Amino acid sequence: MTNVITLYLVVEPFQSTCSYNGRRFEHCCVSLALHLLSKEDVESEDDAKLEVEELAKAIPQGTDHTPHILDSALSGLSDRWKNWVIRSIFTLFMIAGFCGIIYIGPLALMATTLIVQVKCFQEIINIGYAVYRIHGLPWFRSLSWYFLITSNYFFYGENLMDYFAVVINRTEYLRVLVTYHRFISFCLYIVGFVWFVLSLVKKYYMKQFSLFAWTHVALLIVVTQSYLIIKNIFEGLIWFIVPVSMIVINDVMAYMFGFFFGKTPLIKLSPKKTWEGFIGGGISTVLLSLLISYFMCQYRYFVCPIEYSEILGQMTMDCEPSPLFQLQEYTLPSSLQVLWKMFSGKSTITLYPFLLHSLSMSVFSSVIGPFGGFFASGFKRAFKIKDFGDVIPGHGGIMDRFDCQYLMATFVNVYISSFIQTSSPQKLLQQVYSLKPEQQLQLFQTLKDSLQNRGLLNVY
Amino acid sequence: MTNVITLYLVVEPFQSTCSYNGRRFEHCCVSLALHLLSKEDVESEDDAKLEVEELAKAIPQGTDHTPHILDSALSGLSDRWKNWVIRSIFTLFMIAGFCGIIYIGPLALMATTLIVQVKCFQEIINIGYAVYRIHGLPWFRSLSWYFLITSNYFFYGENLMDYFAVVINRTEYLRVLVTYHRFISFCLYIVGFVWFVLSLVKKYYMKQFSLFAWTHVALLIVVTQSYLIIKNIFEGLIWFIVPVSMIVINDVMAYMFGFFFGKTPLIKLSPKKTWEGFIGGGISTVLLSLLISYFMCQYRYFVCPIEYSEILGQMTMDCEPSPLFQLQEYTLPSSLQVLWKMFSGKSTITLYPFLLHSLSMSVFSSVIGPFGGFFASGFKRAFKIKDFGDVIPGHGGIMDRFDCQYLMATFVNVYISSFIQTSSPQKLLQQVYSLKPEQQLQLFQTLKDSLQNRGLLNVY
Repeated sequence: MTNVITLYLVVEPFQSTCSYNGRRFEHCCVSLALHLLSKEDVESEDDAKLEVEELAKAIPQGTDHTPHILDSALSGLSDRWKNWVIRSIFTLFMIAGFCGIIYIGPLALMATTLIVQVKCFQEIINIGYAVYRIHGLPWFRSLSWYFLITSNYFFYGENLMDYFAVVINRTEYLRVLVTYHRFISFCLYIVGFVWFVLSLVKKYYMKQFSLFAWTHVALLIVVTQSYLIIKNIFEGLIWFIVPVSMIVINDVMAYMFGFFFGKTPLIKLSPKKTWEGFIGGGISTVLLSLLISYFMCQYRYFVCPIEYSEILGQMTMDCEPSPLFQLQEYTLPSSLQVLWKMFSGKSTITLYPFLLHSLSMSVFSSVIGPFGGFFASGFKRAFKIKDFGDVIPGHGGIMDRFDCQYLMATFVNVYISSFIQTSSPQKLLQQVYSLKPEQQLQLFQTLKDSLQNRGLLNVY
Repeated sequence: MTNVITLYLVVEPFQSTCSYNGRRFEHCCVSLALHLLSKEDVESEDDAKLEVEELAKAIPQGTDHTPHILDSALSGLSDRWKNWVIRSIFTLFMIAGFCGIIYIGPLALMATTLIVQVKCFQEIINIGYAVYRIHGLPWFRSLSWYFLITSNYFFYGENLMDYFAVVINRTEYLRVLVTYHRFISFCLYIVGFVWFVLSLVKKYYMKQFSLFAWTHVALLIVVTQSYLIIKNIFEGLIWFIVPVSMIVINDVMAYMFGFFFGKTPLIKLSPKKTWEGFIGGGISTVLLSLLISYFMCQYRYFVCPIEYSEILGQMTMDCEPSPLFQLQEYTLPSSLQVLWKMFSGKSTITLYPFLLHSLSMSVFSSVIGPFGGFFASGFKRAFKIKDFGDVIPGHGGIMDRFDCQYLMATFVNVYISSFIQTSSPQKLLQQVYSLKPEQQLQLFQTLKDSLQNRGLLNVY
């Protein structure tokens, strides 16, 4: 057994003896000091060792959860192949689960997003606790969870307000929650903030502030982006399923291409990733997601935004599909026209406009998506952990599978708001009704004049 | 001169000699080690010392900027009074400057907010650099500033879009910036994100990630809240000036009350703060801000929202003041009625409704506001610095004066959106025009029916 002890000496230069608390230590100490001065690395290496030990205790690592039956069935395989089989099996499990949830309906999807969010937050926060080693400090765990609940209330409230405004406005009681929603959220946050300030303990200031920042970064990554995922679901299931599939396909195919053909290392940060995997995964992603998109464009269940129907008194996903999901004829640029004519005999191409959007999303997911993964592996290396957790055999923690999903969801949300979304008349009307009557009249008159000027409204 | 040297010894227990890299060090080392083992605190104390030295180099501390003339004029005073005089003089300077900026107009105020924002960001980032000691790392400084610019583009863009939508929509060129604003911002962010991942250097992962988080927390504190300040300014100068004055008054009066009457310590975190200062400051804040509000309610320059006038082709602050700023008669609760009747001879009280809002804001600023200050002083203690900077003699850095302002601005913004703001017809109309013509017609018809049903519109 070896103990690592840290010593600090105050050495008066140009003296061959040094003293500590009145005792004199000759030669040996000074020469030891000089000896160590030339070896800068020792400090950080030993420090790192300590940290790894601490972290290993706090964060479950590796894939210990592999079921015993599987473990014994695969005992004849090499580690490389064993991992391949386990990973593949659990990938299929997850894909099947995902399909099942889609089949149940959008509310199940939202619930899943919420659960995944909580798990991811938990994994990130646990690393924070391990890194700053303040398990014993009072209040801190409660405080993190309190902030999670507060920010969820804020974001989901903002979301519900937009979509259920019509329903909520009918119930006097819920109206208060809508009108004062932000104020309530802010008050809840302030309570947490004051709580934090009052929980500060002299010896731990730096750790407490670091973990406070850690909590906020975790909220920024997990809660805000989960909120965007939910927003995407409301735009229509296709805006959720297609991007998620893209990341899954890219992960799986990059792993497969890398496993079978990988030779050229891609980036130092993730030594296992190869150019072959990156390119093979990218091309597969573009092709397969076009196929999936083509399939989904044909079903209202996937393409219709989720709205509250006043007539039915419930959520519906029935609509006249937007032009995005109706076949349209496109004339190809002349250079491509020749090729296409040889292939199909036609000079125009008929497709769903959504496929073009699907194309740009898949390019993003296969070029920028992996950077989400690099970021996560850099993060894991920084804090010297192998995975975020050990929930999924062969994959690691939940966060290990969702790092790129969050980045993708943000991209899709921005993409929709920039290129697709036009304000919905229902939502706007709701806002108009919240104006004062005279303002409503004023708006009505201005709109009337404008419509008449543009010849859209017959004067009657 | 004293050098602090860090030694790491690997000590085999139950041996009276220890070796390091083949050399043997007898007795002295082991006894030194045992000696130190019994003094746990030494490590953190010396560590702290090192950090303070490092930080002191990077962050200018103290009030060295006091002009020489002032310094010599005050040479006869004790340090306590000297600081009082210097602080008072520069407080007056700042208040005068603030009034000057208000006199110039709202654009000057916004520019000031922007400059303050940049200075605060710089101060926070500089502390980050000092704490993580990575001055030498490539790209990191540029990356922080890049994120500052990106997030400013995003937030100010979002802001400008709301308010100048009418103007911008007339210019085809600017329209692109409006429509794709979010997408452009996201792309800019992604560039920074990829840049960060590519700039990761093996030895510094942990420091780089910590500083990346630090940058984001700084953006969260400074940029988002500056954005809220600008939003408040647009609602009418009074929503900016009154809250700012409240914090200033609270700071100044708490300091004064504390200086002259302070005896009972308030909180361990800020040993100089006293209950006397807290209570005296609080009461003064409530009273003085009612006075200021009463004065400001009478001028359109202060109460009118800033809007773009299509007729004048420029920004205006002229309007029919909202009922908030028009005198109204209130009946007091019966318990207060008696007192008020004795005092004024009337049973009702006539005041601007804004005064009631001013009252609740001043209560927030004097009860919760100081927690912003406690948070900041905890932060400074955590990282062992005295002030955020040394720009203002007697006060420290810009951030030292603005810590509470940011918290207050967020409160005011939430307060407005919950209790005051109704959507402006102009903004809504803009959104209606962005709908497709048939949707505009649909909205028009629904609105017409609704107005007729409520008897607001004569059928003609």
